[in-house]
Amino acid sequence: MSTQSMTREELVKLVTQRVVEALKAGPPIPLGVSNRHIHLDRSDMDALFGPGSELTFKKELAQPGQYAAEETVIIRGPKGEIKRVRVLGPLRSATQVEISVADGYVLGVKPPVRESGKLDNTPGVEIIGPCGAVKKDAGAIVALRHIHMSPEDALRFGVQDKDIVHVDAGDGTRNLMFRNVLVRVSDKYRLEMHIDVDEANAAGAKNGDRVRITKRK
Amino acid sequence: MSTQSMTREELVKLVTQRVVEALKAGPPIPLGVSNRHIHLDRSDMDALFGPGSELTFKKELAQPGQYAAEETVIIRGPKGEIKRVRVLGPLRSATQVEISVADGYVLGVKPPVRESGKLDNTPGVEIIGPCGAVKKDAGAIVALRHIHMSPEDALRFGVQDKDIVHVDAGDGTRNLMFRNVLVRVSDKYRLEMHIDVDEANAAGAKNGDRVRITKRK
Repeated sequence: MSTQSMTREELVKLVTQRVVEALKAGPPIPLGVSNRHIHLDRSDMDALFGPGSELTFKKELAQPGQYAAEETVIIRGPKGEIKRVRVLGPLRSATQVEISVADGYVLGVKPPVRESGKLDNTPGVEIIGPCGAVKKDAGAIVALRHIHMSPEDALRFGVQDKDIVHVDAGDGTRNLMFRNVLVRVSDKYRLEMHIDVDEANAAGAKNGDRVRITKRK
Repeated sequence: MSTQSMTREELVKLVTQRVVEALKAGPPIPLGVSNRHIHLDRSDMDALFGPGSELTFKKELAQPGQYAAEETVIIRGPKGEIKRVRVLGPLRSATQVEISVADGYVLGVKPPVRESGKLDNTPGVEIIGPCGAVKKDAGAIVALRHIHMSPEDALRFGVQDKDIVHVDAGDGTRNLMFRNVLVRVSDKYRLEMHIDVDEANAAGAKNGDRVRITKRK
C-alpha cells in the first residue's frame, strides 16, 4: 500500500509503528569495514623500516588518533604471501596482524577470532618490509566484531564495557543479525561498529552504512 | 554447573529445556559452502571446450545429479581475471557464473544477489577455455542463500516452496542469524542449505556444519 492511498488513521498507525521499532532498536551506529592490516611495535618498525623510522600519516580513521600509514608490508605464511598489507598507526606495544579467514587460507595459517590485543596462542607470520624481515611466533588474528563507543553513548544504548549484543546489519537481500558483538566503552572512542570484509560481504553492507543493536544478551 | 553436580530434578529440567529448544528450531540442516563456479550451456561448452565436447565427471555434489567437472575456465572482467573456476555439471539452458562479492571487486563487476536462473540485468564476463573464449552480456550473480529440500522435508519444517525463513548458523564466536533465506522445494532436492564463502567465513561455519531454521518470515 502506498502512503498516498492510506487513510489518516492508517498513516498515523504506520508512523507510530516505525517510531516504536526505531526506538526499540536504538540509534543507528556507523559501520567501519576493516580490510586486512597490521599494527607494529617499535622493535618490528625498526627491523622493517629502519632503526628510529616513523610511520608516515596517510589518512585519518574514525577512531580518534588512529590513522592509515603510507607504509605497507608483505606478510608470508607456510602456503603463500599477501602483498601491500597496510600499516595502521600509531605504533603499539605488540605487533598484531588482522586478516580475514580467506586470507588465512592464502597464507596457510588458521588465526582464531580474537579481541584486539589478546594474542596468546595465535599463529605467527613472517613480515617483510623494505629494510628487513621479522618472523613472529604469534600475533595473527581474525578480529572479533565489536562496537566502539564513548561512556555517553553507552548510557544512551543502556550497555556497559564488555557487554555482548546482537546487531542487525545490511538493508538489502543479504541482511542478517550478528550475534556475539562485543561492546567496548572508552572516552577515547567514537561510536562505530567494526567488522571485516567477509562479514560486510555476507551482510551486503559497506563502510559508512548504519547498523542497529537489536538485543542485549 | 557440570551435569554431575546436578540434582535429578535439575538434570530433567535441563534436558527438557534443550529438547524444547531443539524442537522449536527444527531439525538440523546440513550446510553446503559454494566456492565460485560456473554452469555452462551447450553453445558455450562448444565454444570453450570444442564442438560436441562433454564435461568430465570429477565429484558428486549433494544435490542429486549435480557434479563438479574436471574442467575449469578463466573468467575475466574489466579489472582482472580469476583462473581455475570450476565448471559444475550437467550443462544448463543458460550459462551462469556464481562468484563472491570479493571476486566481483577483482573482476571489476558488481553482480547482484540473485536466485539461480534469474539473470536479467546481470553483468557479463568473458569466459576463456582451452578451445576459445566467449564474451557474455549477462550471467554473473552472487548466489542468493537458499535451502534445498524435498516435499517431505517441507512438511516436516512446515514451509512451502519460495518461503523466506531465518537461519541460525555457526556455533562459535561468529555465530549469526541469516535473514531472508529462500526455501526451494522439489522432489529432485536433498536437504541442504547453500551459502557462499563470504557468508561461511562471516558465520565461522564450514561445509557439513549443521544450521537451523529459527523463524518463518
